[in-house]
Amino acid sequence: MSSEPLLPELVDALLKSYRDDPRAHHINRRFLPSRAEIIELTRLLLDLMYPGYFGRQDLTDDNVAFYTGVTLSAVKEKLEEQIGLSLCYQRELSGNCCKDTEPGKVRCDARELTARFLRRLPELRAMLVEDVQAAYDGDPAATNLDEVILAYPGLFAISVYRIAHELAGLGVALMPRIMTEWAHAQTGADLHPGAKIGRSFFIDHATGVVVGETTTIGSHVKLYQGVTLGALSHPKGGDGRVIRGQKRHPTVESRVTIYANTTVLGGQTVVGEGSTIGGAVFLTYGIPPGSKVAVKPPELVLKPAPPEKSASPSAE
Amino acid sequence: MSSEPLLPELVDALLKSYRDDPRAHHINRRFLPSRAEIIELTRLLLDLMYPGYFGRQDLTDDNVAFYTGVTLSAVKEKLEEQIGLSLCYQRELSGNCCKDTEPGKVRCDARELTARFLRRLPELRAMLVEDVQAAYDGDPAATNLDEVILAYPGLFAISVYRIAHELAGLGVALMPRIMTEWAHAQTGADLHPGAKIGRSFFIDHATGVVVGETTTIGSHVKLYQGVTLGALSHPKGGDGRVIRGQKRHPTVESRVTIYANTTVLGGQTVVGEGSTIGGAVFLTYGIPPGSKVAVKPPELVLKPAPPEKSASPSAE
Amino acid sequence: MSSEPLLPELVDALLKSYRDDPRAHHINRRFLPSRAEIIELTRLLLDLMYPGYFGRQDLTDDNVAFYTGVTLSAVKEKLEEQIGLSLCYQRELSGNCCKDTEPGKVRCDARELTARFLRRLPELRAMLVEDVQAAYDGDPAATNLDEVILAYPGLFAISVYRIAHELAGLGVALMPRIMTEWAHAQTGADLHPGAKIGRSFFIDHATGVVVGETTTIGSHVKLYQGVTLGALSHPKGGDGRVIRGQKRHPTVESRVTIYANTTVLGGQTVVGEGSTIGGAVFLTYGIPPGSKVAVKPPELVLKPAPPEKSASPSAE
Repeated sequence: MSSEPLLPELVDALLKSYRDDPRAHHINRRFLPSRAEIIELTRLLLDLMYPGYFGRQDLTDDNVAFYTGVTLSAVKEKLEEQIGLSLCYQRELSGNCCKDTEPGKVRCDARELTARFLRRLPELRAMLVEDVQAAYDGDPAATNLDEVILAYPGLFAISVYRIAHELAGLGVALMPRIMTEWAHAQTGADLHPGAKIGRSFFIDHATGVVVGETTTIGSHVKLYQGVTLGALSHPKGGDGRVIRGQKRHPTVESRVTIYANTTVLGGQTVVGEGSTIGGAVFLTYGIPPGSKVAVKPPELVLKPAPPEKSASPSAE
Repeated sequence: MSSEPLLPELVDALLKSYRDDPRAHHINRRFLPSRAEIIELTRLLLDLMYPGYFGRQDLTDDNVAFYTGVTLSAVKEKLEEQIGLSLCYQRELSGNCCKDTEPGKVRCDARELTARFLRRLPELRAMLVEDVQAAYDGDPAATNLDEVILAYPGLFAISVYRIAHELAGLGVALMPRIMTEWAHAQTGADLHPGAKIGRSFFIDHATGVVVGETTTIGSHVKLYQGVTLGALSHPKGGDGRVIRGQKRHPTVESRVTIYANTTVLGGQTVVGEGSTIGGAVFLTYGIPPGSKVAVKPPELVLKPAPPEKSASPSAE
Repeated sequence: MSSEPLLPELVDALLKSYRDDPRAHHINRRFLPSRAEIIELTRLLLDLMYPGYFGRQDLTDDNVAFYTGVTLSAVKEKLEEQIGLSLCYQRELSGNCCKDTEPGKVRCDARELTARFLRRLPELRAMLVEDVQAAYDGDPAATNLDEVILAYPGLFAISVYRIAHELAGLGVALMPRIMTEWAHAQTGADLHPGAKIGRSFFIDHATGVVVGETTTIGSHVKLYQGVTLGALSHPKGGDGRVIRGQKRHPTVESRVTIYANTTVLGGQTVVGEGSTIGGAVFLTYGIPPGSKVAVKPPELVLKPAPPEKSASPSAE
């Protein structure tokens, strides 16, 4: 089996694979926001939100204006570029290739959306400062706010979510999900940019948290690791595909705490204000304000000191 | 306590630590595949599977053949190098140092295995396109196939798994596990390269999913976050070590859906075709085809609006 | 809406945001350990613990002394720098700016703490070799120790934890948590550097594991994915903040195995020596030595082959 003529033959086979099926390749399409640029952009935005922690650490009253200006200017340029690509992407998908017909229009729209996003930054930062404080107040293991900013994955996930949520609200495609999925990869918390989340939000440990697209969360809510705010099974339409665009995920009112590995499901499920849900609860119906819900101490099979070999159910 | 003569003394102590115990160092051994090279290789393979998304985004009919050729050529070179190192590693472990005795043989074997792997790429890509489609069809939050490719961790984990599974099938050591562990680190889904997984596989959210080495999964299966397909407790042999090489993980037949945080255990456990298992189920026995399994709505302790302090079981 | 004068106006708004609230920025403060340097330092330490795997792979008796000396020298320099920054950070926080008043003192303290840490490296490595062996002995899917070192996220998390725990024991601020959070991001296992963990510790799959700050774990303990060793709900003090500094997390004695997705809570909870806790258990009280605990096989609602549409509770 000689392998030297292998390459041309394989290239042909892959090209045929691209040609034969329009799915899962991006060939002869011109516009796609860049994942690498979006991640860099998100990093710069986090640096503006928490100055002195991740980028330059020697900021003073003398240099902070200069540093902020330079960073913001880079953010603006990258945002206009990536939002422009997203707009063109959306138009190309819908059959209106923007580049030829209206070159100035897209650039103008991108600049306008960028400006609207940037004007939100001070308010965004005010919300994030409250999230930092909520983490410190809620966790006895936190020694100070610096530790929360530098080492709390929940805060990182929330920060990226809040940035992405703003962009999603402006109707920008793909970018918000690329941002939150980047944060998900690092924190284990999957917060959909479409979810609505109130102020002073705290997620501890973060791994395994899932907040679905149509979730609504009030203010001063605390979630622990492994909490899912998810959907009941999806009804399918006549085409065999699940139906899109409904409220599928729960509403969690203000001052609710949900402990580790608890699952709350369903678009009609409302967790009333001030409620506490214990760990490992599986809840598919609403509860009134001020409720305390916990699993009934589950019946355990407890055998003291049996002989060595047992086939007890145990998960590897 | 003067610390200046510290370094020589510490170097000696570490060298002694390396000398005294043959474990956990790779000194005086010549061959080990390179983690960094394997990751780069996997990235290039993903670029061939999904052209235009992760590497160059401006692919057209005019340049795609060139780009594919260049990428494939780099893949081939790196694969031959790393597979060669893996083969030498295996022989060195078994006491047959390949380099001196049979220099041409290993290079020839590596080239042959590389060719066999590369010939599988078009079929591999066909499977991955079906996985992309399955994710879109299964999730109402997905807006199009591009979003699935760019922002679905489950697809990323499955893609790397399918590549690694092919290499595992060729008997290549270490490389497959390094690949899937790299994907695990980014997605939270730990899919062992030894598992057998059918077409149109979908994992949503991905964090916490574990699919064990001897799992068998049919086609059109959907898993949600936190699903474990695991082993019951491992029986130990006479040497006190767990026995290796048995079927320890479940069989999940085609068109099964398993919702979030459910655990299915045991090598004899068969989840019959077309079954649905709800969230938070703990299952250690088989179920017939077409079953619907759910936790019996668990008894919850629900107290409306009690006074502030309560010691309800709640997991931090 | 003209956007060109946007930048100066936005810079001013952000500067005002920094000025108006002292929280969540690091401006006009001089000392903060560097996250990037701490990560690089941790990588170098891992290379000293497992020589030949992550850095240079061609180590031999001839070059290993040289390589170890060079790496250790870099580690020493970086440690002194970052520990010095941490010490200054702590003094600045407490109102004693070290730089002006006692320039030599901090450098001297940092050098002393660095020396004490480095002298622990051989013993640290001895512990890690036992952790590697424990992973191999405990998992039938492991083919050899090399695979454990290169591809087991649990070992990675434990290795970084042990390094961080040493630093925490020396009273160094921020660095230990930055280290373990870096490992958490890659492995999904959140091991607080304050926890006390005995020898031969094994975590399989790792995603979702949380070991709280005041946990105590004996030797030869095995944890699987999704295990939480956590706190019951935190009592609050008069200021409305949770009370800090108590024993809030469980004690797990030697030779205990805890299977996947099990939650053990509470500072008074002691899991007795040699016990086994099955998967998906929720435990808030202690169990005597030698116990076997498992969920009572939960009552499931099982309907064979119902018609297509059902609204069974199922978590997306």
